[in-house]
Amino acid sequence: MPAWSLQEVTEHRTAKSCWVIIHNNVYDVTDFLPEHPGGAAIILRYAGQDATEVYDQIHAPDALEKFLPPSKHLGPVETEAAARLSHERNTRKKTKDEVRVEEAHKKKPPLSRVLSLAAMEKIASETLSHKAWAYYSSSSDDTITHSENARAFSRFFFNARVMRPVGDCDPSTTILGYSSSIPVFVSGAALAKLAEVNITRGAGKEGILQMVSSNASLSPEAIIEAATPSQTLFFQLYKNRVDELAEKRVRNIEQLGYRAIFLTVDAIVAGNREEDIRSPWVLEELESGQPAVWDENAPVEDVNLGGTAGNLVNRDDRNMTWEKTIPWLRGITKLPIIVKGIQCVEDAVAAAEAGVDGILISNHGGRQLDYSMPPIEVLYRIRRQRPDVFDKLEVYIDGGIYRGTDVIKALCLGAKAVGLGRAFLYAQSAYGEAGVVKIIQLLRHEIVTSMQLIGAARVSDLKPEMVERVDWEPRPKARL
Amino acid sequence: MPAWSLQEVTEHRTAKSCWVIIHNNVYDVTDFLPEHPGGAAIILRYAGQDATEVYDQIHAPDALEKFLPPSKHLGPVETEAAARLSHERNTRKKTKDEVRVEEAHKKKPPLSRVLSLAAMEKIASETLSHKAWAYYSSSSDDTITHSENARAFSRFFFNARVMRPVGDCDPSTTILGYSSSIPVFVSGAALAKLAEVNITRGAGKEGILQMVSSNASLSPEAIIEAATPSQTLFFQLYKNRVDELAEKRVRNIEQLGYRAIFLTVDAIVAGNREEDIRSPWVLEELESGQPAVWDENAPVEDVNLGGTAGNLVNRDDRNMTWEKTIPWLRGITKLPIIVKGIQCVEDAVAAAEAGVDGILISNHGGRQLDYSMPPIEVLYRIRRQRPDVFDKLEVYIDGGIYRGTDVIKALCLGAKAVGLGRAFLYAQSAYGEAGVVKIIQLLRHEIVTSMQLIGAARVSDLKPEMVERVDWEPRPKARL
Amino acid sequence: MPAWSLQEVTEHRTAKSCWVIIHNNVYDVTDFLPEHPGGAAIILRYAGQDATEVYDQIHAPDALEKFLPPSKHLGPVETEAAARLSHERNTRKKTKDEVRVEEAHKKKPPLSRVLSLAAMEKIASETLSHKAWAYYSSSSDDTITHSENARAFSRFFFNARVMRPVGDCDPSTTILGYSSSIPVFVSGAALAKLAEVNITRGAGKEGILQMVSSNASLSPEAIIEAATPSQTLFFQLYKNRVDELAEKRVRNIEQLGYRAIFLTVDAIVAGNREEDIRSPWVLEELESGQPAVWDENAPVEDVNLGGTAGNLVNRDDRNMTWEKTIPWLRGITKLPIIVKGIQCVEDAVAAAEAGVDGILISNHGGRQLDYSMPPIEVLYRIRRQRPDVFDKLEVYIDGGIYRGTDVIKALCLGAKAVGLGRAFLYAQSAYGEAGVVKIIQLLRHEIVTSMQLIGAARVSDLKPEMVERVDWEPRPKARL
Amino acid sequence: MPAWSLQEVTEHRTAKSCWVIIHNNVYDVTDFLPEHPGGAAIILRYAGQDATEVYDQIHAPDALEKFLPPSKHLGPVETEAAARLSHERNTRKKTKDEVRVEEAHKKKPPLSRVLSLAAMEKIASETLSHKAWAYYSSSSDDTITHSENARAFSRFFFNARVMRPVGDCDPSTTILGYSSSIPVFVSGAALAKLAEVNITRGAGKEGILQMVSSNASLSPEAIIEAATPSQTLFFQLYKNRVDELAEKRVRNIEQLGYRAIFLTVDAIVAGNREEDIRSPWVLEELESGQPAVWDENAPVEDVNLGGTAGNLVNRDDRNMTWEKTIPWLRGITKLPIIVKGIQCVEDAVAAAEAGVDGILISNHGGRQLDYSMPPIEVLYRIRRQRPDVFDKLEVYIDGGIYRGTDVIKALCLGAKAVGLGRAFLYAQSAYGEAGVVKIIQLLRHEIVTSMQLIGAARVSDLKPEMVERVDWEPRPKARL
Repeated sequence: MPAWSLQEVTEHRTAKSCWVIIHNNVYDVTDFLPEHPGGAAIILRYAGQDATEVYDQIHAPDALEKFLPPSKHLGPVETEAAARLSHERNTRKKTKDEVRVEEAHKKKPPLSRVLSLAAMEKIASETLSHKAWAYYSSSSDDTITHSENARAFSRFFFNARVMRPVGDCDPSTTILGYSSSIPVFVSGAALAKLAEVNITRGAGKEGILQMVSSNASLSPEAIIEAATPSQTLFFQLYKNRVDELAEKRVRNIEQLGYRAIFLTVDAIVAGNREEDIRSPWVLEELESGQPAVWDENAPVEDVNLGGTAGNLVNRDDRNMTWEKTIPWLRGITKLPIIVKGIQCVEDAVAAAEAGVDGILISNHGGRQLDYSMPPIEVLYRIRRQRPDVFDKLEVYIDGGIYRGTDVIKALCLGAKAVGLGRAFLYAQSAYGEAGVVKIIQLLRHEIVTSMQLIGAARVSDLKPEMVERVDWEPRPKARL
Repeated sequence: MPAWSLQEVTEHRTAKSCWVIIHNNVYDVTDFLPEHPGGAAIILRYAGQDATEVYDQIHAPDALEKFLPPSKHLGPVETEAAARLSHERNTRKKTKDEVRVEEAHKKKPPLSRVLSLAAMEKIASETLSHKAWAYYSSSSDDTITHSENARAFSRFFFNARVMRPVGDCDPSTTILGYSSSIPVFVSGAALAKLAEVNITRGAGKEGILQMVSSNASLSPEAIIEAATPSQTLFFQLYKNRVDELAEKRVRNIEQLGYRAIFLTVDAIVAGNREEDIRSPWVLEELESGQPAVWDENAPVEDVNLGGTAGNLVNRDDRNMTWEKTIPWLRGITKLPIIVKGIQCVEDAVAAAEAGVDGILISNHGGRQLDYSMPPIEVLYRIRRQRPDVFDKLEVYIDGGIYRGTDVIKALCLGAKAVGLGRAFLYAQSAYGEAGVVKIIQLLRHEIVTSMQLIGAARVSDLKPEMVERVDWEPRPKARL
Repeated sequence: MPAWSLQEVTEHRTAKSCWVIIHNNVYDVTDFLPEHPGGAAIILRYAGQDATEVYDQIHAPDALEKFLPPSKHLGPVETEAAARLSHERNTRKKTKDEVRVEEAHKKKPPLSRVLSLAAMEKIASETLSHKAWAYYSSSSDDTITHSENARAFSRFFFNARVMRPVGDCDPSTTILGYSSSIPVFVSGAALAKLAEVNITRGAGKEGILQMVSSNASLSPEAIIEAATPSQTLFFQLYKNRVDELAEKRVRNIEQLGYRAIFLTVDAIVAGNREEDIRSPWVLEELESGQPAVWDENAPVEDVNLGGTAGNLVNRDDRNMTWEKTIPWLRGITKLPIIVKGIQCVEDAVAAAEAGVDGILISNHGGRQLDYSMPPIEVLYRIRRQRPDVFDKLEVYIDGGIYRGTDVIKALCLGAKAVGLGRAFLYAQSAYGEAGVVKIIQLLRHEIVTSMQLIGAARVSDLKPEMVERVDWEPRPKARL
Repeated sequence: MPAWSLQEVTEHRTAKSCWVIIHNNVYDVTDFLPEHPGGAAIILRYAGQDATEVYDQIHAPDALEKFLPPSKHLGPVETEAAARLSHERNTRKKTKDEVRVEEAHKKKPPLSRVLSLAAMEKIASETLSHKAWAYYSSSSDDTITHSENARAFSRFFFNARVMRPVGDCDPSTTILGYSSSIPVFVSGAALAKLAEVNITRGAGKEGILQMVSSNASLSPEAIIEAATPSQTLFFQLYKNRVDELAEKRVRNIEQLGYRAIFLTVDAIVAGNREEDIRSPWVLEELESGQPAVWDENAPVEDVNLGGTAGNLVNRDDRNMTWEKTIPWLRGITKLPIIVKGIQCVEDAVAAAEAGVDGILISNHGGRQLDYSMPPIEVLYRIRRQRPDVFDKLEVYIDGGIYRGTDVIKALCLGAKAVGLGRAFLYAQSAYGEAGVVKIIQLLRHEIVTSMQLIGAARVSDLKPEMVERVDWEPRPKARL
């Protein structure tokens, strides 16, 4: 393979012939342009140029291998050019946000002194880049549902039982028949880049299950490789609107060894996440030290109101139905089917009638429809209005869980297990795999202590009458 | 026509003969004094003098044409005098508030970066003159109803449905049979001066309907001229206590092409809007840098507790009744009649029994009776107590709407459409017509996204069971 | 009468013979010591000395005349001594608190710019001496009931009616058959010194009724003299535990022309008003600039946990009963009897059964039992549980009223009128009689406007169905 | 006994032979290591060295006598060594926290000016060492239950009765037949060191009862010695998991003269008290002026998630049952048995069925299971759902009591008496025995005043209908 001069590469800077340089290698991405999940425009901005840095910010290293056929790998740039490009990248001045992140990592506390998931989130808010924090933490509109997902738990108090033998307390359970050391699983969280491997490894070490997002930066293959042979992984499917493509994906997943399909139905379009949309402007203004101002005569900026997620869901199926989609899925896989994104009692009943194996009550962490009912409230309504649902399928919830007591509340009301998403992204981004292991251990400690204090030696001892929905809004102790 | 010397004009400085100079032309306003909506006193303060500046602050350019017969247009002042007056006006030192407003306009963000109606309101609060902001934003007494109008929406959560085909989502509807691109209309907002044209044009471009206030600064003729030929406008009638004058107004409106009469019944007297009342003092103290203090011996200042609105409603009919007023109105016009200002279930029923075509549930944006029930709560009570009302007339609400989800909630409960008032004044004052277009587009984006996420492809798919009134008070996410 | 030397006076400085100098006259207060409502100790601190200043801070000028027989007026001090005492008083350095008050009076706004009772209260909080503010504003324990008295009104919203003829709106009513220009009266507020005359005069000018406290600084005679001949005054009786003394007081009152007896039953002991108790220490520390600190060996300070009120109620009857006290009172007066201090439905019924003419629902402005039910809530419970009570006697409430809408709410629920206490003390202390007149005018403006906007032309048009108790907590508009 | 050289002592610095020097005496603690409630590790850190200071911080002076047989008292160190050790201890530089505490003690107000239990708590928060404050004040997880214990009282308002003879008001009662001057007792509060004697003496002086914690720093013998001969003490039993050891403890207690056994069932494992866990790090960082930071390569710090309490409960019985434990206890003692830690109606009923003499509704001051129901709410539920329980045993509550009104509310609902724990620790640590006496007097004053104002001359006059649970959240008066 010949080595390319920068001059040669520069000539391919249009949609008709678009080359880019990544880590000093040249790639022809012309045919890939219409397929790029992030859109063609962002690639064309770097057409004929070095795109290494922006590529690294967003993609996993194996992404190119995954999406581009070998014939499009055109070979290296000339030695001297490579040296110059590397030098330019290495000597680039750090942005203010990068400097802030570096400082924050130096100042974060010892992992042993992180005592709660909320504390871990606070550290992540300080150590994550603005862009990543804005994407992970953002939620739709006025962030009401995001906030209420968590606060809703605070309206459930315990009727704790005493004088029960709890000296030997075991918090383990099963999910779809697979063992889990505690009734907690990793709920799909997209775009974690390398993080996904840390999360998978941490989950494996601590014996909990993971639902892998189909929007993960890493391929399903890469993630399953990171797992131990005996580790169970589930797959979160964003169904493509083209049935054939969706079927291909499902068959591949089953073959790879994933154990269940979580069909995502709460994210067929992107929610209105303002913090995420605003993120590039915030960085731009931070870097320049100047706020952008209105100029009547300037061309109108084209704003992507879909934000980061907009590109991810563009090809998803917006016309799924109980009648059509579930039978189709049953027809192409033997894996258990769980519908992820149930938000009311009626749809829990519909799911049971459609014969799926489980439902995950979720509003996508408050990232989609603002004022969607908090999952613990939906669970509570199913318990009161249609307890028969719990006999027909397994019920899980995610959204707003921070404490072992939150987990216990959901289990008392009938959930088989609860999922956490952001918590793992935060732990991973602050401390890597060790952070993931840490929050699972914290949850286990809190779950066991709470079970003993509520009078339950096994998760099957947790009963609806042990929680009571109160009519006041609790608040933490005011500091003197 | 002769040119007048300033000396000659100065001689007409009493109620018996009152001349004023406006834009270097002399007008005899003697006969007009008792008719001036703002009262005679304010004119007499400028009798025999140049009143251009204060005139421009409050009136539309065509106001003089509208109210003064040609015989009272006495002609220009002498050339030299005109030059001096113009010079004086041009070299007048700007007030502190004017300087602040100019600076604020220079610092406002690009329109493309305004992501919500709340953000637009914040920009308006910074770019409006104190006087205008105080008038637009003020509400009665302790501003409880103003605040609760908006907060009341936050008690309604969604029971969102999934697995419904919403790929093709259409948010359009009709109001009184006229098409609207989204279920939103411009609710009458008075004293916007030139703004009214911008609002009309923006509404026309985006295909939504407008209810024009009879207190608009521009004449109904001027506004209808600004509209496109196919654009639909409604008229908000403040009924004069003299039936003959009211009838003349109604017949004129119908002839001009307005398509419906919104009879205003919630503003027969002016509410107690302290911020508006206080506005001249605040400006005076800001300018002097000194707070006014109590002097026992000084003459008592005469305070207009009616505020800006006091003058506007002075001649309104305070003795309207269902039995008398509706038949009278039916007798003089063929236009549909909508009663604007319904505030309880009983009056919604009374309106249905009186046979009107629609009701607009409104408490005048919290500007009238403090502790009037929030409109969405009134709508909810009608839905629960008297759902038959929805079969008898069209129901609209205004007050407190900021988001697409607010609109969806009202439609689920039975509203045909919702009105916004201040939002258009704010958008217009910050960015002109482009601002008006912008907020309609933001609302459309939010409405469509929310409809898809709630499982509705058409507005007719929005059902009462999709919203649930909750017993807690939601709050946005706390920042870490 | 001879003139006394200071030396001679000094010799009478014990409880056996106790003289004091007030405004350069000598008084023998030996026999009066045990009767002094403020206790003997405070007088003895000034025994044999000039007590003018402390006397003036607390007593009305006629107090000495009232309580001390002429034989104890011993005559003036010698001329030279008088001059020296006057000089000392005049040249005494002002305390920091006095200086603050003087400055505050210079900075208070013009009365015309005071737009609400809350604004008036704020000015009073700045212009009152610390001691007076602490006494007036203080309430018991954690000030919950004081606060809730006012906040409770905010849970009552209006179902306003439209299309009713309200052009001619009359807010007048009667109380026990006596006319009142608005349904508001002055509820007894003690220790206002000269203020009491200003309040009486202001009430007379504006045509409202006053209930005069038996703890007033001025004598009942002095107050009735300040009233106009046609002005109606009621008397608030703190019943002495000795029936004969109480009877004497009642007979005197009736003879003086007071028109009703409000028997006070909610203040038989003093509430725990910490701010009032703390007031002398605060002043002491303010003056010295040093906080007092714990000294294990110092003698223990004797704290009066009864505060200012403790001395006032020391001789009150703590063993009143419905069976004994009401018949006794009926037996000695023909005046109508109103029980002031009803705090629950059961006692409203008991009062009706005891045959009294009226009840004043009151918890003494939150100054007595903390967590006593707010009066508007008690009124609401009577309306729902025992509406027959309203047919048997007149019902009034006081506590927490700031706005015309508060008055309207109480009247809708069945109150005949509402009382305000602190509001008049505040208005008087900030602006004298003019302040009193001002707040009555503000209330009238608010009451009339609210009546028109709720659809009521007369107070008799105010109905229970016009108010609705809501299940949320309203809050004023957040400032941007 | 010979005197030891420091060299000789140093040689015994392992678990096989472990000597320590305390107050210049040498002790062999080798055999005691596995029994130390605080764990062996902390002792081994001082093996072969002077441990006086750390010993004094935690233990009562008689602890060594209690736990170590005389044969292990090896005698003094050599004179010169003793002098050097004493000198080192005396000249040790004070820590920043010690300096802060000393300053705070100098600045605390005169005891006479402390007007409430909340004020006392605030002073304690300033005068306690960080370690002690963190331990006393800490509560589990997010401190919700700790906070709600107190706030729950604020939802109970009074329906106060008037016109009842309360001139002679007596707040005394009995608990298990023993007289108490007010219906308040000292609820067990552990680790108060010498404090425990001050609390016992103060309680004795003021005639109230005390429940002594088996985790007290002082031995049960030492405490009973501090009491007056006629003073009644109860014992709070943390049952050892070895029945024989527990029995020995119970028999000893009965013999010493304790009058009842409060069997603790709400603290079989330690709650998750983060402030307590964090306390050593906070001190370390305060002293060094540097926050600890994450070092990937450093050894992982071993965190005791059980905190201070973890060691205390390690040997407690976690397998108690109604069927087994109560009959066992009945079999070995004639003392009345009270179960401390009931947290729901079902267990109150279970206790009644098990035939115990009383229950103490308690969630251990919010230190154990977060979101455990507040005691006053549990009491309220028993009153409404199972009032028969009150006929079968005596009911007490503790947790969240600050005011006389709180006590009254509990008594109205059926409690025989209420316990306070932290309040006594706080009062003692701020002012010693005088502080303990003070808060009892404050409570008595508040209780008597409240009884008179609610219309109760005796505690037996307090009835359920005098309190009403309201549906709003009260708040104290906002400061102007």
